[in-house]
Amino acid sequence: MAYNLLKGKKGVIFGALDENSIAWKVAEKCAEEGAQMVLTNAPVAMRFGKINELAEKIQAQIIPADATETEDLENLFKGAMEAMGGGKIDFVLHSIGMSLNMRKGRSYTDLSYENMLKTLDISAVSFHKMMQTLWQMDAMNDHGSILALTYIAAQRVFPDYSEMADSKALLESFARSFGYHFGTRNKVRVNTVSQSPTWTTAGSGVKGFKEFFQYADRMSPLGNASAEACADYCLTLFSDLTRCVTMQNLFHDGGFSTMGMNPAVLGLGEGE
Amino acid sequence: MAYNLLKGKKGVIFGALDENSIAWKVAEKCAEEGAQMVLTNAPVAMRFGKINELAEKIQAQIIPADATETEDLENLFKGAMEAMGGGKIDFVLHSIGMSLNMRKGRSYTDLSYENMLKTLDISAVSFHKMMQTLWQMDAMNDHGSILALTYIAAQRVFPDYSEMADSKALLESFARSFGYHFGTRNKVRVNTVSQSPTWTTAGSGVKGFKEFFQYADRMSPLGNASAEACADYCLTLFSDLTRCVTMQNLFHDGGFSTMGMNPAVLGLGEGE
Amino acid sequence: MAYNLLKGKKGVIFGALDENSIAWKVAEKCAEEGAQMVLTNAPVAMRFGKINELAEKIQAQIIPADATETEDLENLFKGAMEAMGGGKIDFVLHSIGMSLNMRKGRSYTDLSYENMLKTLDISAVSFHKMMQTLWQMDAMNDHGSILALTYIAAQRVFPDYSEMADSKALLESFARSFGYHFGTRNKVRVNTVSQSPTWTTAGSGVKGFKEFFQYADRMSPLGNASAEACADYCLTLFSDLTRCVTMQNLFHDGGFSTMGMNPAVLGLGEGE
Amino acid sequence: MAYNLLKGKKGVIFGALDENSIAWKVAEKCAEEGAQMVLTNAPVAMRFGKINELAEKIQAQIIPADATETEDLENLFKGAMEAMGGGKIDFVLHSIGMSLNMRKGRSYTDLSYENMLKTLDISAVSFHKMMQTLWQMDAMNDHGSILALTYIAAQRVFPDYSEMADSKALLESFARSFGYHFGTRNKVRVNTVSQSPTWTTAGSGVKGFKEFFQYADRMSPLGNASAEACADYCLTLFSDLTRCVTMQNLFHDGGFSTMGMNPAVLGLGEGE
Repeated sequence: MAYNLLKGKKGVIFGALDENSIAWKVAEKCAEEGAQMVLTNAPVAMRFGKINELAEKIQAQIIPADATETEDLENLFKGAMEAMGGGKIDFVLHSIGMSLNMRKGRSYTDLSYENMLKTLDISAVSFHKMMQTLWQMDAMNDHGSILALTYIAAQRVFPDYSEMADSKALLESFARSFGYHFGTRNKVRVNTVSQSPTWTTAGSGVKGFKEFFQYADRMSPLGNASAEACADYCLTLFSDLTRCVTMQNLFHDGGFSTMGMNPAVLGLGEGE
Repeated sequence: MAYNLLKGKKGVIFGALDENSIAWKVAEKCAEEGAQMVLTNAPVAMRFGKINELAEKIQAQIIPADATETEDLENLFKGAMEAMGGGKIDFVLHSIGMSLNMRKGRSYTDLSYENMLKTLDISAVSFHKMMQTLWQMDAMNDHGSILALTYIAAQRVFPDYSEMADSKALLESFARSFGYHFGTRNKVRVNTVSQSPTWTTAGSGVKGFKEFFQYADRMSPLGNASAEACADYCLTLFSDLTRCVTMQNLFHDGGFSTMGMNPAVLGLGEGE
Repeated sequence: MAYNLLKGKKGVIFGALDENSIAWKVAEKCAEEGAQMVLTNAPVAMRFGKINELAEKIQAQIIPADATETEDLENLFKGAMEAMGGGKIDFVLHSIGMSLNMRKGRSYTDLSYENMLKTLDISAVSFHKMMQTLWQMDAMNDHGSILALTYIAAQRVFPDYSEMADSKALLESFARSFGYHFGTRNKVRVNTVSQSPTWTTAGSGVKGFKEFFQYADRMSPLGNASAEACADYCLTLFSDLTRCVTMQNLFHDGGFSTMGMNPAVLGLGEGE
Repeated sequence: MAYNLLKGKKGVIFGALDENSIAWKVAEKCAEEGAQMVLTNAPVAMRFGKINELAEKIQAQIIPADATETEDLENLFKGAMEAMGGGKIDFVLHSIGMSLNMRKGRSYTDLSYENMLKTLDISAVSFHKMMQTLWQMDAMNDHGSILALTYIAAQRVFPDYSEMADSKALLESFARSFGYHFGTRNKVRVNTVSQSPTWTTAGSGVKGFKEFFQYADRMSPLGNASAEACADYCLTLFSDLTRCVTMQNLFHDGGFSTMGMNPAVLGLGEGE
């Protein structure tokens, strides 16, 4: 069912790799709700993904961009505004994260710092670069909405999440810091959505992911939130109904973040 | 503009006193979005308010209830289900708060404890009573949504807010605790919305409110959120687009909660 | 080993029942560190406990008081100051909690509200009463320290903790609210210590406690904190070395509160 | 007054520049409490500071080290253990922070990313490097204590703090993440102390610092915490009395972090 929640709005979506990606679902849902979009991803990621299928389906243009390169970001946003008819942008989704150390199997107590700085650049600083580029181009419409996806490892320790935890803490800080500036000048809001572990192609590659997914599912009174549900939530945050919510980290996790212990995890049945 | 976000949904709204009430705005907006509702308030509050005007406007039935009396709550929910055609309830708003000690001008270091226990009962325990009654009557539809309005004084000290701060801390705890049970059994979510200081008839009576309102407005990058904007936000939380958000305290405050210091408060202009 | 950390200081300790009580350990350690104390407990609790043994050991006077009765509290503090030579009080420990509904086996979705209000009065409002009495008697020395023991159920849901969770949330709010007043007038600090589950006589009576204790122990990188370690921590908070720490909830829990998931809980070995 | 709190303990202190530095005060106090220490700072910082005076006063050796170079860190810890008689290390203080963009007057919406990555490396990643080096050398004694100094800008926005806010968020995340590993293997605890704005040589150079210092002082019921008081607090966290406190961010700020609004800031007198 569609509500026309985003009728007439224009967005840019980072990070749709394939149909399991949260960004993919967000793009689909935003299109159903009446938004026009441009899709982007790193040139290298585009080779492996199926972003063309999505672009065709929702009639969106694709503009490749390395989110760590400000020049690419400038071209992206310039191209996006042109592709969507010349006006400014109403919403942006940042769904980017990659850990070089995890990829190379380095444990958290034996990290390469060259890798770590790249991980931080790709997974967190790219968000600041994206916002600074939008800011300097004055490319966001007033009352626009900027979102990044994050994970509760930014607050609590999940050992297997390794340096991605630290990247997410940095990402969330950028949302707060830049949210002040964008709010003050443009009434633009900046938030992060802290999503349940999700069966994306990226997520499922993390070591011990299956056991952890199950653990989180049992811990959460509503179970893990799906990628599709996450997309629904993003719709509300891009819509005009949440214009005063900013600089928040919003848990979309079936209640996981508020649980201390769930008897279901201990195999004890419900709490009463 | 209406989206039909709540088409076919049935709700119960506590605490609409007059057109300045947040609950009043919520009821209006929910009606615009296609919901059917029953309005309720304490018998004594109804004498002073204009709830009849609202009821007429949105074609809702009024069922008076003292929210501290479980018998009243049972009659309310029973009557509400009948009035709305017999099915279960999809959403409930708790917007109730009153401090006897503040009313009587008692300072926080000279409280009457008889008053305090009544304040806690009215402002916080009533929320548990409401949920326990709904639970025992099995009156909530699966995937329903329960909301209470709260204030950031539950986390940080605003001296003039006195014992209401403690009441709100208790209220938010009830949301978390009961949210676990309602989520596990019914996929019902329970959240609190922590709203900016608002020019309601209740709010503006608090000592030093005007100065504080202005302070909060300057501190918040987006300014204070209005009652109308709060109603918009509540719509999203009653809708099917936020089905995995539960046991959260959600700040709807223009960014106030995330600000440490705003140069605008010090009269210094923007931060850069 | 003793450091003379509390040499010359005078304290009042609530809630020492037997040698398993945290309050008992605190009193012992404070005596070793040079403090003079008065012990207190509810008349009914004193009948079952062994507080006399403790009093003898540390040469402290006992003054029974029902912490929900302000008259009792006035007599207590008046008597305490006399018993300790006439000066004001430097530190106070509140270690009081009891749930009537849990005692009577009422589940969280079927609470008696008469019981709940008594639980809140005993477990949380008693802390406000204690502070208000001290405030009005002007009985605290400047730079004094007031502590209450609490539990992380105030922030996250542990279903078996039932209404005690809500009581602790209220207790912590009182610490913040009154901390502002006591800090401003007397430089007195007010904090809560959020302690690991502990094998006290009170704690071990809670349903499912053993399983939960073990779960928390595995989740915490340092394991559960013992009552004795908690007493050590309280020493630092009563000492002059923490004069600028106030209105904080301080986790003394071996790291539990910051863990999202520990492989040890899933039986997976360490995270790397 | 000295308590012999750190008798027999061995520590390494990063970041003592001159007598206004918090690290300087920490080193002095630790010496008074019986600890043996090695001091370190970046070679370039040593030229401008007076670290030799301090070293003489407390009879500590100085070993220069660039905290962003793991080789330097290895030499430092190797040298430190030798200098202090061959055993392992009991406590470490990280007090390092520097923003290249702030130094060059770049505003938060016009940052150089080359600078930012260096800022993150110096101010935050250096803490991970320090811990990873200690970990791989197995240089920490069981039950040791690692501390880093941080600031509340990691949680809330203080616009003039610019990219240092993000650096501190990252630093605090490293404390949590590494705290899990060090706790599990060595019972070593890792915490951060979030200190009031302080009149250090570094702090006072930040734009608008004076106005902000005053604002924070008025907002805090106990006023801003001094560098000396911070050193006292660090003593407790290095001592054996806090062995179960880990992975925490501990506010040492006179209550600032818990205040929402202080009437003293608005020039309204106390809240009652």
